[in-house]
This record gives sequence, structure tokens and C-alpha cells, in this order.
Amino acid sequence: MQPVTAVDTAPNPGIIFETLLAHQRSAALRTAIELDVFRAVGEGPADAVTLAARCSTSLRGMRILCDFLCIIGLLAKQDGVYSHTPTSALFLDPRSPASLHATARFMGLAEMKTTYDHLTEIVRTGRTVLPGEGSVEPDNPIWVDFAHSMAPMMAPLAGPLGSIVLQGRTGPLRVLDIAAGHGLFGIEIAKQHPEAHIVALDWALVLDVACANADKAGVGERYERLPGSAFEVDFGGPYDAALLTNFLHHFDVPTCVGLLRKVHAALKPGGVSATLEFVPNEDRISPSTAAGFSLTMLISTPAGDAYTFRELEAMHREAGFSGIEAHPVPHSPHTVVTGIVGPA
Amino acid sequence: MQPVTAVDTAPNPGIIFETLLAHQRSAALRTAIELDVFRAVGEGPADAVTLAARCSTSLRGMRILCDFLCIIGLLAKQDGVYSHTPTSALFLDPRSPASLHATARFMGLAEMKTTYDHLTEIVRTGRTVLPGEGSVEPDNPIWVDFAHSMAPMMAPLAGPLGSIVLQGRTGPLRVLDIAAGHGLFGIEIAKQHPEAHIVALDWALVLDVACANADKAGVGERYERLPGSAFEVDFGGPYDAALLTNFLHHFDVPTCVGLLRKVHAALKPGGVSATLEFVPNEDRISPSTAAGFSLTMLISTPAGDAYTFRELEAMHREAGFSGIEAHPVPHSPHTVVTGIVGPA
Repeated sequence: MQPVTAVDTAPNPGIIFETLLAHQRSAALRTAIELDVFRAVGEGPADAVTLAARCSTSLRGMRILCDFLCIIGLLAKQDGVYSHTPTSALFLDPRSPASLHATARFMGLAEMKTTYDHLTEIVRTGRTVLPGEGSVEPDNPIWVDFAHSMAPMMAPLAGPLGSIVLQGRTGPLRVLDIAAGHGLFGIEIAKQHPEAHIVALDWALVLDVACANADKAGVGERYERLPGSAFEVDFGGPYDAALLTNFLHHFDVPTCVGLLRKVHAALKPGGVSATLEFVPNEDRISPSTAAGFSLTMLISTPAGDAYTFRELEAMHREAGFSGIEAHPVPHSPHTVVTGIVGPA
Repeated sequence: MQPVTAVDTAPNPGIIFETLLAHQRSAALRTAIELDVFRAVGEGPADAVTLAARCSTSLRGMRILCDFLCIIGLLAKQDGVYSHTPTSALFLDPRSPASLHATARFMGLAEMKTTYDHLTEIVRTGRTVLPGEGSVEPDNPIWVDFAHSMAPMMAPLAGPLGSIVLQGRTGPLRVLDIAAGHGLFGIEIAKQHPEAHIVALDWALVLDVACANADKAGVGERYERLPGSAFEVDFGGPYDAALLTNFLHHFDVPTCVGLLRKVHAALKPGGVSATLEFVPNEDRISPSTAAGFSLTMLISTPAGDAYTFRELEAMHREAGFSGIEAHPVPHSPHTVVTGIVGPA
């Protein structure tokens, strides 16, 4: 993600007004998706009159919305005619195979967004105002939606994660995919390695999504369901590898250590644990996307965080892992942290 | 205001995620203001533990909030200690004379912000979902709050506007300040020109704010109240100058032309009308702040807009003005458009 601010050398009130109005940008993108503006633009460059007709909106509303999308870099305009930018063509037109339409819809969910109206209270108390345990409440239906919606965002990470996990491994492999969600990470390993057998753990309704994706990818016969809570269900095993993707950030340090211990116990000697996370630098303010993810965890969980590598390394070590390494995923804000089970 | 996006040369999903999460930035700033974080930082650089104590918040909440403020460029951090940036020291610390605290509070008003939850409906119908005429409903109490709150934002514009209006004028001057609000523009002319007499027009409750400001500036004896609607009240006159600051953008073109005709009729030959506006370029997508203001007008009014100079020029011409000129105000997103009353 590109930096959102320049270096602050001289006092500049503009950055304050821009920040106060930043919510307009989210609202404009959400509305454009709801009105299917990116599909309409994809039908061919057009002026506001034509786009208003294609989307059944007012002319005034469509013109001002499209101009604003140009201002924030999500459409182009020439002589009154709007067209896709390279980014909007590839990632926002719903007909593009790489479309993030579903992801964007999920991230714009009213339930998530309105939580920010309570940010002041959340900072005071230090935890989510969502009911129960927030987004980590057992069987929270949000994760079914997440499994459907976030796959397009996560898909580009599956290849790199698979390569890291499979590095130097041959022959039959048993892989435990914890909090499998959409299942893409385990499925990718099954695709890269024909002798891999995947055990996917998640809430039962979420596993329906993962299994459908496994069938679609042609690896359904090597894909096994393990429904339940990662903290309560027996992992079985032993496994050659365990995946913990976008999961640890929801919990406090003792909970993460406890889970990593359980993972360690389920792995064979030489087995690898692969954790995919937003890992900020030790300053916790860079890089911006990974560091900023802490705010999402403040909003939605009782005690989650975007952990630094030093923190993740300490958790892994305490859980018994050795050879702990960080593998930043190129062109993404994510990092894969691996730990090895030493000889017994 | 600095540009919010880089030129879009290659497809970049980061800009989409950044836009979807842009509302976090507004929420973080609003919360920091509500919790008085910028005052607490101004008491001396401090770590999250100290700031949490100063603001009576949780440690987790304060640490994540302050890190996020660093990420978006509104605080600095070194070795775990947070301090002001030049911008936050001057414009966000409530003890700074240039503080925009009140303005920021106004712009974060729940009523204004939640309107964006209805943006899709607004684009469909082409007008505000606020009751009646929205922000231009007669006697809307928002303008009293506006008069109190927006003065710090407008203060830097008063000097330049005054110089443009007074250019080449000497002797006794009668100046009509239409929709005076906080009154700063007319007051500045009274300060720059000891023989200027100001007639301030606005809703009665708003004029209380303007008159208090005039008294505070020591020009109360040359400051006259004209309460009512700019469209209904008799302007009196004749005047040497009329100010129309941040007003025309609330209305459609015929309404603006009608008002400018009424202004023209109230001015002496050689008299000047000075309109302060966000004036985008003819492409309507640059510069970003002026062009983006259209969205605020879409949200809050039935038919308002950020008009281009060509449109403003045509309105002035139709109303009878000549010598119509644009004067961009340096270091601001605003432009002053002047028109002269030709000899009878």
C-alpha cells in the first residue's frame, strides 16, 4: 500500500481537513460498488448522462460521484468522459477475474463500519464494543461471509505461502490448516504438492465454503473437515505442517502461546508451523498497512493486535519452536513467520 | 491540500484497501480530539502509559490510537515516546492560537457524518436526505454552530479577501456582508479600512455570533445587523461592496443568478461583488479540495455545487456584472471571484 501522507516538514492544515473528510472516500467507493458504477464504466467509456442511465441514478449524483472517484484515483476522466484506470479495470470491474468487488463489499459491511462511531469509548475501555468476544465470538456468522468475500484479497498470498511451507519437503505430507476460512491456503498446497493431504479446521458453516473451493480446485479427495474451535478440538496428527493464517492477531499473547504449544504438540519432529500475519516493524508505525491493522483489532476484538516479529518470535520460542524466521511476502503487506519442531 | 493519490500507472490493489479503510482516519482524529489527546501530548512528549493516564483511557486503546495517528501523519514517535508534529502542534493542540479544534469538532458532527451512510440513496435521487432543504433550510441551527466553529478555518482567508475588495477604494465605504456567519470577512474589512461601515446579513441567532466577534475586534460601532434570509430581506443600500462568502455553492444556477441580480441592484456604479468559493478547474476533478467539495454539496443540499469559474462568470454576467475576475487565494483551496457594476 502506498503511503497516505508526506513527510511533515512544515505545518499544513490541509492534512487535517483531508483526514476529517477521509470518510467520504470510503463512502464514495462503497456507493459506487452498490450502484455497480464500475461495471457500467466497463461497458465502455461514457459521460455522466450515460452512466446515470446505465445505473438508474440521478445525473447530478452520478456526475459528482464519478468526479470524486477521479479525485481519489479510482476512475479517469477526459473531456467529460469517464473510463477505468488500470487499477479499477483489474480490481473493481466485477467482470475482471481479479475483481475485489466481494472483498470491498465485506469491508464496507455496516456492522464493521458503524463500530467506528464508538471508537472513543473503545479507546477508553481498551476493547471492542461488539457483543461477547466481538469478531472472535464462537460461530460468529461474519466468518462465513469472510470466507466468501476475502478470498480474492488472499488469493495472491497462497502461492508464496505454499512455496515457503513446501520448501525442501517431499513425499506424503499431512497439513493442518487452522481457521481455514475460504481454504485457499491449504488448497494451494494440495495443488502444488500432489501427495499433500489437508485437514481444514474451522466452524462447520465456514468449512462448507472451504470444501466447495477445494472441490472446485479438484483437490476435494485430499481435503478433510475438522469442525470446531481451534482451542477446543483435538488436532489429531501428527502433521508435517500447520498453517495459522490471519488468526493470531485476534488474541492476546498468552492465548497465542497456548495455541502455538498445541500446534507444536501436533507436529512431527522437523514439522513446520507457518503463520501469515500483518507484522509491523518494531516502531509499530511502519509499514502503514501492517501497523494500521492494530486499529482494526482494537475495534473488533477484546485483546488482539498486529504483533511485531520480536513478539511473534518470543511466542513461538515459548511454545517450543526453533529456527523461527520471517518471510515478507513480496508486493503485499503480509509476512509469513515459520517455526520448526526440533528433534524430540 | 496535498494530493491524496499518486498517478495511477500500474494496477495497485493497495489504493482500494486504503480507500475502504479511509474512514478509520476520520474516526481516529475525531476520537483523539474527543479524548483531548493533542492537549495531553502538548503537556510534554510521553509514552502510551503516560498519555493513557493523562486522558483517562486504557493503555491498549491509547497505544493503538497514537500509533495510528503517527501512521496518518498527525503525531510523531521516537523510541516509544509520542510528540507533536509541526502540524499537530500548531493546528490540533487546543492551546495553540491557530488551533482548528473547534472546526474539527464541527466537521466531525454526527449529523453530517451519518448522512454518508445514505450516499447510495443520495446519488440515486440526486439530493440530500436531510429534512427539508437540508443545510439551507431557513434558520437551520447548524449555522450558529458553523459560525462558532469554522472561524479558525476561515480566518486566514479574511486578509486576502479584504485586500481584494479594498483595492483602489478610499473614503467612506458601505459594505454588505451576505450570510456573514462568524462575520470575520466584514470585520476584517472594517479593521483594514477605518471608514468602512459593515451591514451583516444572516439569521438572527447567527448574527449574535458575528456581532460578538465584531465587538471583540473593536469595530462594533461600525457593524450593523440585518437579520433574515438573503433571498427575502431588503438589502437597503446602495453599497460600495458586497461579500458573498461560501454561499453560492448551496444553490442551483438560477437561484445564484437571481441572488447576484439582487446584489447588483444594491451596489453603486463601480461597486464590487466579491464571492469566495471553492472553484474547481473546468475538468471538475482538480484541484482536489475544491473539486471534492461538490460531494459535500450533494450530501447536504438539494441542488448546490462547486462551480467552475466559467459557470460563475456566466452567472455574474447574466446578473449584469462586468470585469469578472478570479483571484485564487494563495496557500488555500479558495478563490475570490469579483464582478463590477458598470456605469448606469
